[in-house]
Amino acid sequence: MDKQELLLKMIISSWETQNARMNKLLDVLTDDQLLLETAPGRNTGIYLLGHLTAVSDGMSTFLGWGNRLYPQLEEVFIKNPDKSGLAMPAPATVREYWNKVNANVSKHISQMSPDEWFSKHTAISDEDFAKEPFRNKLNIIINRTNHISYHFGQLVYLVKK
Amino acid sequence: MDKQELLLKMIISSWETQNARMNKLLDVLTDDQLLLETAPGRNTGIYLLGHLTAVSDGMSTFLGWGNRLYPQLEEVFIKNPDKSGLAMPAPATVREYWNKVNANVSKHISQMSPDEWFSKHTAISDEDFAKEPFRNKLNIIINRTNHISYHFGQLVYLVKK
Repeated sequence: MDKQELLLKMIISSWETQNARMNKLLDVLTDDQLLLETAPGRNTGIYLLGHLTAVSDGMSTFLGWGNRLYPQLEEVFIKNPDKSGLAMPAPATVREYWNKVNANVSKHISQMSPDEWFSKHTAISDEDFAKEPFRNKLNIIINRTNHISYHFGQLVYLVKK
Repeated sequence: MDKQELLLKMIISSWETQNARMNKLLDVLTDDQLLLETAPGRNTGIYLLGHLTAVSDGMSTFLGWGNRLYPQLEEVFIKNPDKSGLAMPAPATVREYWNKVNANVSKHISQMSPDEWFSKHTAISDEDFAKEPFRNKLNIIINRTNHISYHFGQLVYLVKK
């Protein structure tokens, strides 16, 4: 394995690790717990799970993998904050979306060639990419991995002490 | 810039981004806020900041950069949980440690050659490293970056709504 492949493996494995931690947490949280706020006045578990699902689903657009599975999530979980008054799907439904989105993302990741990871994502122009080659598809994975870690730190507050 | 250098730059830049976000947050939090719990019954801000400082300082050992600056932090902020009864340094002191540790880490990062990042960290044997070459120094940076994001998600709960 050359160094480039090794680095790719490390970055993707870090993404997988954060998702695996999330799944382990979801296994211990009940639907009722997901409906609670992670801290007084803060985002609920269900909002954060919907938010992470919508953001992972949105990677399909950024990475050129085709249409998102659940574009309707964007309005409730990205464009609007928690408690916006917009109807949210039930916890069981959001869990199902999360699993399907993750399966879809994993499938596409496994089909990417090493070189494809270095191509530009869809939200940057050719001109800007020529100047900033680090704004490639792999960088989306690095950013989204940290994004999961960030909200995971909040979701663990739903676990009873 | 070749792909390997580009990947190194992306990973280190992700580390720097999370640290910069932390510094921005620390600028808006008062010392009194740092003494509060991030959520009822959960870790205080000061504990989490001390914990992140101790973990970043500990990278010096893992990465072969020499002695830690503040080895005394390990007992209070890593080996023991918050509210253990052990005396904690004052917020101003922990802030100072955080800044000094970060400056030290940045200095050492800037002196690393690309090849050094691929060498094994000090907590793995030669034998295991031969089987698992991804357990290199750079992987410590990837893990620690996500570790900061995780606790950063909790520390933002100290900001008044």
